[in-house]
Amino acid sequence: MNVLLVHAHPEPTSFVAALRDRAVETLTAEGHDVVVSDLYAEGWNPVAGPADFVVRADPDRLSLQAEQAHASRTGGFAPDLARELDRLERADLVVFSFPLWWFGLPAILKGWVDRVFAFGRVYGGGRWYSDGALRGKRAMLALTTGGPEHIYTPDGINGDLETLLFPVHHGMFWFTGMQSVPPFVAWSAARVDEATRAGYLDEYAERLRSAFDAEPLAFPGLDAYDTTLRLKSAS
Amino acid sequence: MNVLLVHAHPEPTSFVAALRDRAVETLTAEGHDVVVSDLYAEGWNPVAGPADFVVRADPDRLSLQAEQAHASRTGGFAPDLARELDRLERADLVVFSFPLWWFGLPAILKGWVDRVFAFGRVYGGGRWYSDGALRGKRAMLALTTGGPEHIYTPDGINGDLETLLFPVHHGMFWFTGMQSVPPFVAWSAARVDEATRAGYLDEYAERLRSAFDAEPLAFPGLDAYDTTLRLKSAS
Repeated sequence: MNVLLVHAHPEPTSFVAALRDRAVETLTAEGHDVVVSDLYAEGWNPVAGPADFVVRADPDRLSLQAEQAHASRTGGFAPDLARELDRLERADLVVFSFPLWWFGLPAILKGWVDRVFAFGRVYGGGRWYSDGALRGKRAMLALTTGGPEHIYTPDGINGDLETLLFPVHHGMFWFTGMQSVPPFVAWSAARVDEATRAGYLDEYAERLRSAFDAEPLAFPGLDAYDTTLRLKSAS
Repeated sequence: MNVLLVHAHPEPTSFVAALRDRAVETLTAEGHDVVVSDLYAEGWNPVAGPADFVVRADPDRLSLQAEQAHASRTGGFAPDLARELDRLERADLVVFSFPLWWFGLPAILKGWVDRVFAFGRVYGGGRWYSDGALRGKRAMLALTTGGPEHIYTPDGINGDLETLLFPVHHGMFWFTGMQSVPPFVAWSAARVDEATRAGYLDEYAERLRSAFDAEPLAFPGLDAYDTTLRLKSAS
């Protein structure tokens, strides 16, 4: 299978970089073809805007969706973006590895989604959720947190991690048709001892080995919604 | 009062830019002092990393929190970041105006938070939530959505907007001690007619005029949590 690993951490000796290396090693040993988009190392530009397009439908006024649609028809995406789009479309499994910053994706990774999940190629025209253009693919988050597990719960001071990640699992992955493997979380990664960190790496390798078999997070498909896009059971 | 308006949209003639202009006009007429951080226009760099610091505690290995702590003590933040930190600390009300992209902040705005909400100056040492360094300030989101209100509900296909914005309201604003004014939302901004958009602008102006008086979103204070940082009522 083809795996795209999107890695977002500025420090090459960080624990998130160790997660990246373990993922490449593990998935390669399983016979998969692994491509790494190392966003900091590659100087990825996360700012969606005019630089996304080599040809414009309307050079005077920027509508990102309209330009994405136009670029999807004409092949007019900027080279960095076109490369990532190709990588995404080729992948059977997409893994994001990152530190949880301000309860979400680091900006460089959020901007990978903002730019690469382009109208036309990746969504639009009724292709969303269970009819999404990326259906058949799987996606998985691998993240580090600043605090321990029990504070990312419904009663914990930081709130429930499932709620915090809902915009990613549901709004990015499921919206485009990808099924999410449950996230791998290295709790308090910077504050635990070496043995715990080594255990995290082993646990992560195990999770990656079962990524194509694991039960995905469950979200309703389009047939669960009525014509106004509300759950049928609620109407 | 001092208001900091952080504006994130690439197109100067967009509806979000109209929201920005109406906010400046309205708040100025109310006698407030308004500063605009126009992130696209100013070429804001949203990528937290080595460029955040003019002097490093450890030039060989980047720990963002350690460098932020060091820069907070020594005044070692890069000029762009130092300017935004000063603006943030001077503000009584912080407004983010942006299009909801992939169910969250555009990367350029997420990276404003990643860089400006710095350990030392903005949080750390027990200063969080109701003891946050920014307590006494208010914050407000003003956003446009791609779809209509009823699809951003618990039964709607995109999920509940309150849940989608929890990482911002709770994880960014409340975490640093700021109380959130309920968000202003211009539903389906690109798909409604001119009269509806004009109505949105009037409604927004009204909401801004009451921003210092409105009942803020309610989140528990530190005294609601036990020593393990779980809600007392749950233990």
